[in-house]
Amino acid sequence: MNIALDRDKPIPLARQIQAHLERLIRERLLTPGMKLPATRELARTLDVNRGTVAEAYEELVAAGWARAHVGQGTFVAERPEAPGTSLRPASDHAGHADPAPSAAAPLNWPALLSRSAQIIAAEDERARTLVNAAASNPVVISFAGGMPDSGLFPTEAFRRVLNQVIREEGASLLQYYPAGGYPPLRRYLSTYLLRFGLEARPEDILIVNGSQQGFDLIARTLVDAGDFVAIEQPTYPRALQVFRSFGAQLAAVPWDAAGPRVEVFERLLERHAAKLFYCQPNAHNPTGLTLAPETGRRLLEAAVRHQVPIVEDGFDGSLYYGARPAVPLKAADAHGVVIYIGTFSKILFPGLRLGWIVGPPPILERLQAAKQLADLHTSALIQAAVHRFCERRLLDRHAVRVAREYARRRALLLAALERRMPSEVTWTEPQGGFSLLLTLPPGLDGAEVLPAAIERGVAFTPGAPFFVDGGGGGTLRLSFSSVAAGRIDEGVKRLAETIKATRGRHRPRSRFEPAAVPVV
Amino acid sequence: MNIALDRDKPIPLARQIQAHLERLIRERLLTPGMKLPATRELARTLDVNRGTVAEAYEELVAAGWARAHVGQGTFVAERPEAPGTSLRPASDHAGHADPAPSAAAPLNWPALLSRSAQIIAAEDERARTLVNAAASNPVVISFAGGMPDSGLFPTEAFRRVLNQVIREEGASLLQYYPAGGYPPLRRYLSTYLLRFGLEARPEDILIVNGSQQGFDLIARTLVDAGDFVAIEQPTYPRALQVFRSFGAQLAAVPWDAAGPRVEVFERLLERHAAKLFYCQPNAHNPTGLTLAPETGRRLLEAAVRHQVPIVEDGFDGSLYYGARPAVPLKAADAHGVVIYIGTFSKILFPGLRLGWIVGPPPILERLQAAKQLADLHTSALIQAAVHRFCERRLLDRHAVRVAREYARRRALLLAALERRMPSEVTWTEPQGGFSLLLTLPPGLDGAEVLPAAIERGVAFTPGAPFFVDGGGGGTLRLSFSSVAAGRIDEGVKRLAETIKATRGRHRPRSRFEPAAVPVV
Repeated sequence: MNIALDRDKPIPLARQIQAHLERLIRERLLTPGMKLPATRELARTLDVNRGTVAEAYEELVAAGWARAHVGQGTFVAERPEAPGTSLRPASDHAGHADPAPSAAAPLNWPALLSRSAQIIAAEDERARTLVNAAASNPVVISFAGGMPDSGLFPTEAFRRVLNQVIREEGASLLQYYPAGGYPPLRRYLSTYLLRFGLEARPEDILIVNGSQQGFDLIARTLVDAGDFVAIEQPTYPRALQVFRSFGAQLAAVPWDAAGPRVEVFERLLERHAAKLFYCQPNAHNPTGLTLAPETGRRLLEAAVRHQVPIVEDGFDGSLYYGARPAVPLKAADAHGVVIYIGTFSKILFPGLRLGWIVGPPPILERLQAAKQLADLHTSALIQAAVHRFCERRLLDRHAVRVAREYARRRALLLAALERRMPSEVTWTEPQGGFSLLLTLPPGLDGAEVLPAAIERGVAFTPGAPFFVDGGGGGTLRLSFSSVAAGRIDEGVKRLAETIKATRGRHRPRSRFEPAAVPVV
Repeated sequence: MNIALDRDKPIPLARQIQAHLERLIRERLLTPGMKLPATRELARTLDVNRGTVAEAYEELVAAGWARAHVGQGTFVAERPEAPGTSLRPASDHAGHADPAPSAAAPLNWPALLSRSAQIIAAEDERARTLVNAAASNPVVISFAGGMPDSGLFPTEAFRRVLNQVIREEGASLLQYYPAGGYPPLRRYLSTYLLRFGLEARPEDILIVNGSQQGFDLIARTLVDAGDFVAIEQPTYPRALQVFRSFGAQLAAVPWDAAGPRVEVFERLLERHAAKLFYCQPNAHNPTGLTLAPETGRRLLEAAVRHQVPIVEDGFDGSLYYGARPAVPLKAADAHGVVIYIGTFSKILFPGLRLGWIVGPPPILERLQAAKQLADLHTSALIQAAVHRFCERRLLDRHAVRVAREYARRRALLLAALERRMPSEVTWTEPQGGFSLLLTLPPGLDGAEVLPAAIERGVAFTPGAPFFVDGGGGGTLRLSFSSVAAGRIDEGVKRLAETIKATRGRHRPRSRFEPAAVPVV
C-alpha cells in the first residue's frame, strides 16, 4: 500500500496515515473484514517508524473504523459507517496534495463521446426496459435464454484436454501468438466444414472471439457511417446493434417461410449501394427456420450481380432437426461473395468466446489486420484445448448427445403449444437452433404481456428487438434450449393462461403496422 | 462430407463423386495422408449405393489421387500433384450447379473497404518491410522481442489453479458471462491497485482482452475521424496504430528525461481541442523511463484545465528497477481525468489476453457497452484462473522472481553497452519495463543497420515505428526481457562491431531532422 505522505506539512505523519486509511475504508476501497498490512511492513513501505503506523492504527480502532485482533493483526471493521459521511469529498484528501485548481470541474464525458458511442448509448437506453423485464427468479420457467444448457456441458472432458495441452505446449500457448489463429485448429476447421460442403483452406479461416467479434471486425472493415447495410428481418439483435453502432443505415429484408424475400432484396439493391447483407440462413434466431436451397441460389445470384458481400452467420450445422444438416450458403458460393461466421458457442461452450470467419483472401487479410489491432489474437491456450477436444472426436460425440436432447425439448415445446395455445396464436416450426418465434393474437404486445407472464411464473423474450423497423411488437421468442424437458409443458400452460387472461384487457392494435422495408 | 449430386445430369453419380473429391484433393482441401470416409459411411450420407462410392474411390486411386491400404481404407496420396493443374478452376465444379452467371466478376474487395480498413492497410504496407527484417534465426541473439521470457512462465502453477476453478465452478465459467468481468477478479484488482496508490472500486474496473483491447475500446468510445489525439513520442506503435485507424490526427508530445514535455502539451491543447492524450508514464516502451512526479502533476493540471482525458497505459507497477514502485498518474488524479489501462501480459502470460481499464463511472459505463458489442465478454474461465493465482499470492511470488531476473538482465545490458559501444552511441537508462532506446552515431539509421546486424548474429527493433512524426530513424530499441543473461554481452559485442563497421559506409544524414511536434 502506497500513501503519499507530505513531510513538509504541519500534520503529523501518523495522522496523515490515519486520515488516508479512514478515507479508503469510508469509500469501501478497503472492504469490511479485510486485513490491514502488518505495521512493520507498512512502516518499511512508507519509510516511517513502526510506532507511527501503530499509532495510526490505534486511532482507527478507537474511532470504530478498524478492529484489532491480538496476535492476528488489524482488520477493517465490519460496519464502518460513520454518520454524515459523503462519498469522496475533495477537501478530505489529508495525505494527498491536491494537484489541480479545486475550482476545475470534472470532465464532461458525454460531450466527449464519439458518434459510435452515442449510438450505442441510445440503443442501451432503448434496450434497458426490455432486458430488465426478463426474470431470473428460479420459480419462473424461463424461455428467455437463447444459450445452450450448461447442465449439458462436457466440462470434465474439457478440463482433461486443457491439462494435456498445457503439459505439452503450455509455454508457447501462453506467449504472444500470431493473429490468424492456432494452425492445427484452422486445419481441423478446414476439414470439419467440408462435412457441410463448405470448402475453406486453413489460411482462409481466421480465429476470433466468438461470432460477436466476427460481426464487429466485418463491420469495421466494410462499413462507414452513412453506408447502407441490408439485413434480414427478424434478426439477431446484437448483430443489428453492431452495424448500427458503425453508423450504418439498416434496410430490412423480411423472412417468409423460404428465407429472406429475394425480390425485396433485389429491389433494395437497385435503390441503394448496400455495403453488405447480413443473414442467418440456417438455424435462424429467433425463428429456427432454414432458407430453401432455391432462395439461397437466388440470393447469391443477386449478390453477385449487385456486387454486394453476404455475411452469413452460420450458427452451427450440427444442430438441426431434419434428416441431414442444412447446407451453408457459403457452400454454394462459387464467386467468393460470402463471408461466413462460425462459432463454438452453441455446440460447445459460449464462455470460451471462440469462433471463426471464412472469407475470400483479399478480405480475410483485412479482417486479420483488424483483429490484430482489436486485441492482438485469441487465446492460443483455449484454441489448442478446443482443437484437442475436436481431434479426439469428443465434439462429435457431444454434438450427437446435445442435438438429441434439444430435439426432444423442441418436440415437447411444439406439442405443448399445439395442445394449449388459443387458435389465434401461431408460431414457426424450428428446423435448427434453439428457439421459435410466436405471434400473439391481434391486439397483444410481447413486451406488455411479459409482466403478467412473469407473475404467472413464465418468461420469454419480447419480439420487438429482433425487428429492424420497429415492428414485431406482436411477437415473442421462446427458447427451448435451456429449459428442462420436464418444465416445458407447465411453462407453455402458464403462457397460454396469461395470453387468454390478457387478451380481453387490451384494445386491438391499430391496423396501421409499420411497412415491411423502411430504411431506419 | 456433403457432396451436392445432380441426379438429373447425364454424368454418372460415381463420376460426380470422383470429380468432386479430385478437386478437393487438388485444391488441398483434403490434405495428403488424410483418410477418406469409409465407403459405407459416405454412401449413407449421399444416399447412393456403396458400390458407387467404391467405384469413385477406385478411379481416384487409379489416377494417383489416392492410395488404398487393404483393411485400413483409402487415403489421400502424399504427393497428389497433377501436371498443369490450376487452382480452383470455375468450370471444373462437376458436382456443383454453378449458381451464378459465369460472366460475373468476383467482388472488388478493395473498393468495399471502410476508411478505417484502408488506413490499416496503408499502415501494414509501411510496417511490413521492418517486421520482415526481424530475424527468428536461433543463432541470432535477438533484442527485438518486447515480451516476457516464456522460460520464466509459472505454467505448472497456472495449470493447477485452472483445474481448481474448473472443478469448482466450471459450468458457470463456461457459460455466457456479464461484460464487466468476473467479480472476484475486479475486487482483487481494486485491492491490488491500492499498493500503487491507485484507488478504484471494483465497479470502476472493466476486464478486457489485454491492453490492446483497452486502446481499441477507448478509441472507439472517444475518437471520431478527424479528431485530434495527443500522443507521447516515442510511443508504443500498436497504440498509435489504433488511434490512427479511427481516423485521428496524431500530435506528438516528445519525451525528455522527466517525461512528456508539458509545455509542448499545453501549446498543443491551446491550438487544438484534443480528444485525449495517450502516454505510458512508467516503464515506458521503448525507453524504459519513468516520468517525474512534478511532470505528472503538471500534465494532470493541464488536462483538467483543457478538459482533455489522459489515457494512461500502465504497464505493470511491479516491474521496476528502483527502490520502490513508480506511482501511476491515475493515483494523483483527483478530478477523474485519467483512464488507466492495466495488463497481466508483462508480469504473467501475454497469451491469456487479460487486462483491465479503470475509469470514472460515466466513461466506464460506455466502455463496457463497447466491450459488450465487441465480443460480449472476456473468458470467465481465464479470469477465474488468474484470480485464483493472484489470491493464492502466486502472482506476488512470481513477480518478485521475474523482477529480480529482469533487473539482472538490465544490469548486464547496461554494463555491456558501457563497455563496448563507441562514444557517440547513447541510450536511455530504464527504470522499469523490458527495453531501452539506443541512439546511433549521426548518419546511421536503425532500419539500414539491421540487415548487417543480423548478418553478424544480432537483432533489434528499429526505432522509427515508435515515432509519430516520421523521425527516430537514428534510434533502435533493445529489449532485454527475453534474452538469456549469458548471451547479452555477446549480443552487444556483435551490435557494437556492426555499428563500427557500418559507420564508415554511410553518408551522414541531412541535418534537417523532422520537427519535434508536427501534426501528422
